[in-house]
Amino acid sequence: MEKRMAAATASASYRLLNQKNHTSKRFLDHRRLVTNSSEVHRSSSSSRGFMHHCGTAPLKNFLARFPWDLQKSSLIHIQNLPGIQHRTFGSATSTIIQRNPLFSTINHDDIIYFENKLGMKNVIQDEEELQTANTDWMHKYKGSSKLMLLPENTDQLSQILKYCNSRCLAVVPQGGNTGLVGGSVPVFDEVIINTRRMNNIISFDEVSGVLVCEAGCILENLMSFLDKQGFIMPLDLGAKGSCQIGGNVSTNAGGLRLVRYGSLHGTVLGLEVVLANGNVIDMLGTLRKDNTGYDLKHLFIGSEGSLGIITKVSILTPPKLSSVNIAFLACQDYISCQKLLFQAKRRLGEILSAFEFLDAQAMNLVLHHLDSVRNPLPSSIYNFYVLIETTGSNESDDKEKVEGFLVDAMESGLVSDGAIAQDLNQASSFWQIREGIPEALQKAGAVYKYDLSIPVEKMYDLVEEMRIRLGGKANVVGYGHLGDGNLHLNVSAPQYDDAILGEIEPFVYEWTSKQRGSISAEHGLGLMKAEKIYYSKSTATVELMASMKKMLDPNGILNPYKVIPQSLLS
Amino acid sequence: MEKRMAAATASASYRLLNQKNHTSKRFLDHRRLVTNSSEVHRSSSSSRGFMHHCGTAPLKNFLARFPWDLQKSSLIHIQNLPGIQHRTFGSATSTIIQRNPLFSTINHDDIIYFENKLGMKNVIQDEEELQTANTDWMHKYKGSSKLMLLPENTDQLSQILKYCNSRCLAVVPQGGNTGLVGGSVPVFDEVIINTRRMNNIISFDEVSGVLVCEAGCILENLMSFLDKQGFIMPLDLGAKGSCQIGGNVSTNAGGLRLVRYGSLHGTVLGLEVVLANGNVIDMLGTLRKDNTGYDLKHLFIGSEGSLGIITKVSILTPPKLSSVNIAFLACQDYISCQKLLFQAKRRLGEILSAFEFLDAQAMNLVLHHLDSVRNPLPSSIYNFYVLIETTGSNESDDKEKVEGFLVDAMESGLVSDGAIAQDLNQASSFWQIREGIPEALQKAGAVYKYDLSIPVEKMYDLVEEMRIRLGGKANVVGYGHLGDGNLHLNVSAPQYDDAILGEIEPFVYEWTSKQRGSISAEHGLGLMKAEKIYYSKSTATVELMASMKKMLDPNGILNPYKVIPQSLLS
Repeated sequence: MEKRMAAATASASYRLLNQKNHTSKRFLDHRRLVTNSSEVHRSSSSSRGFMHHCGTAPLKNFLARFPWDLQKSSLIHIQNLPGIQHRTFGSATSTIIQRNPLFSTINHDDIIYFENKLGMKNVIQDEEELQTANTDWMHKYKGSSKLMLLPENTDQLSQILKYCNSRCLAVVPQGGNTGLVGGSVPVFDEVIINTRRMNNIISFDEVSGVLVCEAGCILENLMSFLDKQGFIMPLDLGAKGSCQIGGNVSTNAGGLRLVRYGSLHGTVLGLEVVLANGNVIDMLGTLRKDNTGYDLKHLFIGSEGSLGIITKVSILTPPKLSSVNIAFLACQDYISCQKLLFQAKRRLGEILSAFEFLDAQAMNLVLHHLDSVRNPLPSSIYNFYVLIETTGSNESDDKEKVEGFLVDAMESGLVSDGAIAQDLNQASSFWQIREGIPEALQKAGAVYKYDLSIPVEKMYDLVEEMRIRLGGKANVVGYGHLGDGNLHLNVSAPQYDDAILGEIEPFVYEWTSKQRGSISAEHGLGLMKAEKIYYSKSTATVELMASMKKMLDPNGILNPYKVIPQSLLS
Repeated sequence: MEKRMAAATASASYRLLNQKNHTSKRFLDHRRLVTNSSEVHRSSSSSRGFMHHCGTAPLKNFLARFPWDLQKSSLIHIQNLPGIQHRTFGSATSTIIQRNPLFSTINHDDIIYFENKLGMKNVIQDEEELQTANTDWMHKYKGSSKLMLLPENTDQLSQILKYCNSRCLAVVPQGGNTGLVGGSVPVFDEVIINTRRMNNIISFDEVSGVLVCEAGCILENLMSFLDKQGFIMPLDLGAKGSCQIGGNVSTNAGGLRLVRYGSLHGTVLGLEVVLANGNVIDMLGTLRKDNTGYDLKHLFIGSEGSLGIITKVSILTPPKLSSVNIAFLACQDYISCQKLLFQAKRRLGEILSAFEFLDAQAMNLVLHHLDSVRNPLPSSIYNFYVLIETTGSNESDDKEKVEGFLVDAMESGLVSDGAIAQDLNQASSFWQIREGIPEALQKAGAVYKYDLSIPVEKMYDLVEEMRIRLGGKANVVGYGHLGDGNLHLNVSAPQYDDAILGEIEPFVYEWTSKQRGSISAEHGLGLMKAEKIYYSKSTATVELMASMKKMLDPNGILNPYKVIPQSLLS
């Protein structure tokens, strides 16, 4: 009963936020704001060849597309009890987080100090602006910070962080604030340090392809810059219009090009980082090979701003290639999808740039709920569909290669039917099927969403087991980045129901854990999953993480309550 | 005068080692032993396509090929002064290392403990076997360990390491002992823990291409295993017949495929590591995407066994591709080489697998000293030569692509002349030029060798500046992995001469440092360059490394005296 009431309260608070329409302000600020989950949306970019031309969508389209979590899913609410601030997570396993009483609160002298260092206009106390910065993009998390600081360079950031550390003022580093796990907004009254003014491109080497820039550069701006040089960023995200490269690196963003260019651990060549005590760690190398000591930059890639604030990034960018092909294929069973992936890696190895899959349930949802989507393979209903994209340097060679591969795949029975996009429109319509799934799920009712990494051969077992568990109570949908082993498991039901949630959690985490999978493939842990880390990491590993945290940030001021379980840090 | 005497003593000690012929024993043990520097040698592997068939060379050929450092370069000698053991480095900047008096020495009870845990035959006290394990492959470094332990599995390794830590017995982790910087042999009497018995392949997923194996697996054995599955290792080294994957990962080995498949930070997906206190850290994920907490495995990649001992490795392996092309080209100036690299990345982007360069001085040396080498472009002498290799999935497409690229490169004047290998013999003869340089240098006299990462656009400036510095006193030769920004700078002189060394060092390190280059591109720091780390890393970064070391290994028992300057750890 208490749980249901909590959920109701939270729901109300979301509606309130929506009415205040902060989202529209964000859009005006940043041109376009879409989630950084490639699960949800794939936005346009001229640098991605001919197939991703969905354009800059008008605001109302985005609101129509992405309100489901705001309206229907309500995981967190705020309770202000006398004397203690804490937060309750209304999921299957509740966790209460209490404000760390060791942290100071902002006073007048602090403000004077910051204004002297940064200038008055870069010390933000305006309520409306703070409300935006306090709220995450999904409107799932809302802090109550009274102060946002906008340093212009590393030196300023170093000075204010040193000051915060000396005063024991907690800090939340913030980039484009497009994260999905509550990592980029305050939990309580942490000082927000936003890097948006640190947005200079420092250098680009057109021989090596190495780009060096400040952390606040917006990803899409970097893409535009590189496009003119004939290069691309090794990562691409739906949120590219808002997200900053510093945030991308801090969260080890995955995105759409990972299957081809690998993770940021491979492409980031150097970082400049400011530690909690203000010390600047210059690891801003631009070299592909450097074996002089421990490669400490990796500690800061994916640590979600909890070990240091990234201020500069050096990254290896691949050359832009001109030829893109897209095929949409039908398979009768999951093993055929696996075998097709195996063959694609072999036959299309060097040009393969995406390998996505969806099941019949996902296809049915899309066809039923989205008027604009057509099945390019309408003659029959198949059990699975695969979308393959190639990117290479020679159009005729690549097309021939893709066609040859597909002929063989059909002859061997792996593929039951298939189509290759012949023009922009067809290519776009193929991607729309894959990209339309989240919207279709939203239209279908309530949805429980899980973003999991699972060994490819086991991945679909979870979907099938979940179907058996839930029986007729819900529609279980599986799709995702098969090429990366990243499953998007979605459970669609007419409405939110604790009985259904009880069937899903903790089963989904336990199942993933048993397969040595990851409960967060690309979004990070943030506030949402900090306490769930043990599902994917061993106790000894988590303890080692906590030791790192305590060593690098002994006062625990950097992005508190996130990533690492609180019990290890107190 | 004292310095010259020291050099003479060391020279004598090398000759003595050679006469004892430990190298021949190593060859018998491991089939083939070559340096792990791709600078030196490129050995055969069926999995590398048709161009690397130099076969398993007989022992005397290897001895003929690689004795130069043993006979002519003498960097270290041992002085046993009464009461204190220490070592002097006989380079331009001398450093004395003293045995850490806090370390215990082995006693009878220790032996009994280890024998109980591992069985008598895996507790090696045999002098001859120990002498081999105490000596590095180049015979530059020699320790005086009295004990080598051969654990069979992680549990055994964990128990013996925990014991060593409790007894404050220093330890040197050892794999194939093919390192080039004295990282894999004891400095004094450290206990050697060799992982060669931990050589099981644990799993291979032919859909994802993820291989999981124990640290002691020999690289070439893994290659052979994968070859049958239609995959390749993402790294390839000259030392593959001896080196172990655990050692490869511990040293972040670069090798011949880095330009295509990136570094081990990108391809290693998981590790199991035993810390100094015996704690087993299970980070053995097999997932391409996992954002659950700090990615701590990267701390152990390239830390040369000084933070923990790697016991298991999970690594992403690329599919084997069938089509290989090799072109040998002449350029008139270095800027043309750069532009050619730029074009090759664009035009051959997805199939480019090697981009090597050498200057006319290197070519002249090879042609003069190696009878078997012919210049495929004999009509004129050019200033620079470039070797380009492509690897792809379609022979005719790739060939057409390479030919088209070369025609354009010649028409635009970037390439003055060129040849494409038409068969195995030609391909092999092209590689022989590039691979023959170290041998030719050795035959030419004394040689000072430097392995540097420098931004591509500045790389050759160092060679030219060095030529000006040295005037007619020595022949300065530049070649290396242009595609990776990895220069092999070699100074060839009739004999070793302190005056020449004084002109080279510390200038070469200072120059590299000014360009934010790396004084160790792929070999690591080991014992040789631990004290030179500041040339490539900032003070704050090195101090942070030292903090990591002290946190993870508070007694400092793991591979002491290496990687990190001693002054920071005492």
